[in-house]
Amino acid sequence: MLAAAVRLFNERGYDATSMFDIAESLGITKSSVYHHISGKEQLLQMAMDRALDGLFEAADEVRALDVPAPERLERLVRRSVLVLAERFEYVTVLLRVRGNTEAEQHALSRRRDFDTIVTDLVKQAQAEGGVRPDIDPATVARLILGMVNSLTEWYRPRTGGAEAIADALTRIAFEGLRTE
Amino acid sequence: MLAAAVRLFNERGYDATSMFDIAESLGITKSSVYHHISGKEQLLQMAMDRALDGLFEAADEVRALDVPAPERLERLVRRSVLVLAERFEYVTVLLRVRGNTEAEQHALSRRRDFDTIVTDLVKQAQAEGGVRPDIDPATVARLILGMVNSLTEWYRPRTGGAEAIADALTRIAFEGLRTE
Repeated sequence: MLAAAVRLFNERGYDATSMFDIAESLGITKSSVYHHISGKEQLLQMAMDRALDGLFEAADEVRALDVPAPERLERLVRRSVLVLAERFEYVTVLLRVRGNTEAEQHALSRRRDFDTIVTDLVKQAQAEGGVRPDIDPATVARLILGMVNSLTEWYRPRTGGAEAIADALTRIAFEGLRTE
Repeated sequence: MLAAAVRLFNERGYDATSMFDIAESLGITKSSVYHHISGKEQLLQMAMDRALDGLFEAADEVRALDVPAPERLERLVRRSVLVLAERFEYVTVLLRVRGNTEAEQHALSRRRDFDTIVTDLVKQAQAEGGVRPDIDPATVARLILGMVNSLTEWYRPRTGGAEAIADALTRIAFEGLRTE
């Protein structure tokens, strides 16, 4: 049900999707849908959580690694790309949310928490050495996450290739395009 | 009038903005608005053109430069950041468009043309040497433009600092974060 709802949210927009549309796309009645969930808002909440949980799990995994901060940063960037590719429809829902309800505000606040985790890791990597210290850490985090999040605009999960894109993205971010 | 309309489109969404809202925000009557333009669609079209014209002018300027392709690429990336910052509200409108009307389809097609210009410049820069040849040029273009376009999510024109962000972005893209 969640997958069906999320597909409709992304195709038509959350506001334009009704509980009836969700029921119809599953070939069940609206009252059957209400048997399982309280409403559209709960489905949105679940979808945003699925995206955010993936990102926070990645952050936890990376935090536990016994490697220098620049490497932890690189791993987290790579894992973010893979989470986005695996949970593509959920992350797409998350990134379109503008904070119109309490649930959306909560999701935006968790997104900011994730940004802060990345910013702190950039700071640590700059302090340890290995990551250039001449760019404000919050700007680094925003630009790198902006590059990751751009996948929702052009990546297509059906065609795959997430690993190759994660490689390309981390190479650009850490080594840069220039060869000389 | 265009600026007022674009502000409303970004605040409330294009669909949720009526010609009455636009008139009201200008303190004039709806019929005065219709005296100048044919409808909401025309304002959207003008807004998207303003964003796209800025990007294409930047591409033309860069094409005319007598410097190697890698430097033209870097200049175009930098100029794209500055165009986005200068025409922030217009680019934000452009990037939210999903192709629901003929005008939106036309804008999406012009966006793809711009992506192609950047992809071709990456190809040229890879062929000339100076830009790493181990990443597919279309992927490079998408990731770099994704990083640029992410500004619509977090940059605030009022606080300024576009030059510093353009510096940070081109440094990450061309030199990378790693220092060792």
